[in-house]
Amino acid sequence: MSKLNETEKQSLKETAFAMADVARAVTLRYFRQANLQTDNKYVEGFDPVTIADREAEQAMRAILQERRPDDGIRGEEFGDEPGSSGLTWVLDPIDGTRGFISGTPTWGVLISIRDQSGPIFGVIDQPYTGERFIGGMGEAYMAGPHETKPLGVRGARPLHQSVLFTTFPEVGSAEEGAAFHDVAKQVQLTRYGMDCYAYALLAHGQIDLVIEAGLQDFDIQAPIAVIEAAGGIVTDWQGRPAHDGGRALAATNPETHAAALAILSKTPEQ
Amino acid sequence: MSKLNETEKQSLKETAFAMADVARAVTLRYFRQANLQTDNKYVEGFDPVTIADREAEQAMRAILQERRPDDGIRGEEFGDEPGSSGLTWVLDPIDGTRGFISGTPTWGVLISIRDQSGPIFGVIDQPYTGERFIGGMGEAYMAGPHETKPLGVRGARPLHQSVLFTTFPEVGSAEEGAAFHDVAKQVQLTRYGMDCYAYALLAHGQIDLVIEAGLQDFDIQAPIAVIEAAGGIVTDWQGRPAHDGGRALAATNPETHAAALAILSKTPEQ
Repeated sequence: MSKLNETEKQSLKETAFAMADVARAVTLRYFRQANLQTDNKYVEGFDPVTIADREAEQAMRAILQERRPDDGIRGEEFGDEPGSSGLTWVLDPIDGTRGFISGTPTWGVLISIRDQSGPIFGVIDQPYTGERFIGGMGEAYMAGPHETKPLGVRGARPLHQSVLFTTFPEVGSAEEGAAFHDVAKQVQLTRYGMDCYAYALLAHGQIDLVIEAGLQDFDIQAPIAVIEAAGGIVTDWQGRPAHDGGRALAATNPETHAAALAILSKTPEQ
Repeated sequence: MSKLNETEKQSLKETAFAMADVARAVTLRYFRQANLQTDNKYVEGFDPVTIADREAEQAMRAILQERRPDDGIRGEEFGDEPGSSGLTWVLDPIDGTRGFISGTPTWGVLISIRDQSGPIFGVIDQPYTGERFIGGMGEAYMAGPHETKPLGVRGARPLHQSVLFTTFPEVGSAEEGAAFHDVAKQVQLTRYGMDCYAYALLAHGQIDLVIEAGLQDFDIQAPIAVIEAAGGIVTDWQGRPAHDGGRALAATNPETHAAALAILSKTPEQ
């Protein structure tokens, strides 16, 4: 990890929160409004991009240009802008656009900072509920309308007492979906539909496992920072770093992680 | 519907809101707390009942005993208490207990009033987000932290442009699940995991269809009142009233409802 002094860390955190604040304001202006314009990024599938997505990323980039002009930027909507500081901001202005257009409070603004080793700080912000989950550079807490409290994963429990989340029951390719369901058969409860909010719930000590596939790097970097800061583990399905996207397995502790990995790791690599 | 004068309606609404307020306070005391005690109502499956569920229903019943002693009560946790007024309060203190124990803000407190014809007023309250969805006796609105606004379903669109919700991909029996997936194949987007919040989203104009099976009457009566007040339709899978539970199909308008019903109605009755 880059050696950052306290002043530098403070600058990074304040910048991240200023970006989350502006993204919150922009996205809420469009959330649950009628006649939301959407278009499909892919002909197949359904991955709408909203005006809110673009405007929120532009607003966050404007803050970076002013406050952190030497940092790189990688954003879902407007691509890569190289920097010279060794730090890159990785942005997904609306993770969970399908949740967004359905009105569910499960999407989030994902902001993370990475160096050459991976994410070092992350924010998962849910604008509608007003919750912000923060992890890295010595921080692990959530701030919300009801309370501000430390984040921390819950205690280890066997798979048959664990709660597993993913967003869609299909979970990637047919083979990936089959592997997911092999884990799902062994847990106490499997639930769907939470988008990035599932990672926040894991860091918050509410659930035990999140398994996803087909991710982009900007989908998973903020969750990695938040979960690791809360004491959890995120890897790919072979136990390697997951910060480049693809398949992700998030768990509260090494035992639960190992139990799920033993099943998922049999999936042939693509 | 019973002939109720304005004073009587006002008394009923004020009582319902007082009940929702107390249930909100009780449930939030337990939501996302560690070491939540749960037990299984059924040996098979997973249907935890929390302390919060019981305490919230007791608190709501105490309000009814004081304010509406002549009304009947039907509650999920403490059964039936007959009344003499012709009105019965139907209560589900925590609809979506699995969501509750997973920390998702998708469960709700369901409060409804029924006469011999079915539900005439309903409240879906989500304590954590602070949203309350209200319908019946001349009301159709939501009150929440961001705004108070009228409820209303969105305009008709064909199935292939519709958004469909249900809580679990299995949706009841194998035959019921197959029928559900026959509808899911035709819509634009299917999402899971929202518990009773899905009905609120339909009344709020965010989504087009909710399909469930295996419901209890107390799961569906408040959603029926709210959705009908917002201009939508709720029936069982044969187009008959759904207020006794079982299978439910909620839709924004007659065309969307008919398109889904044409598929679901082929399911053999149990």
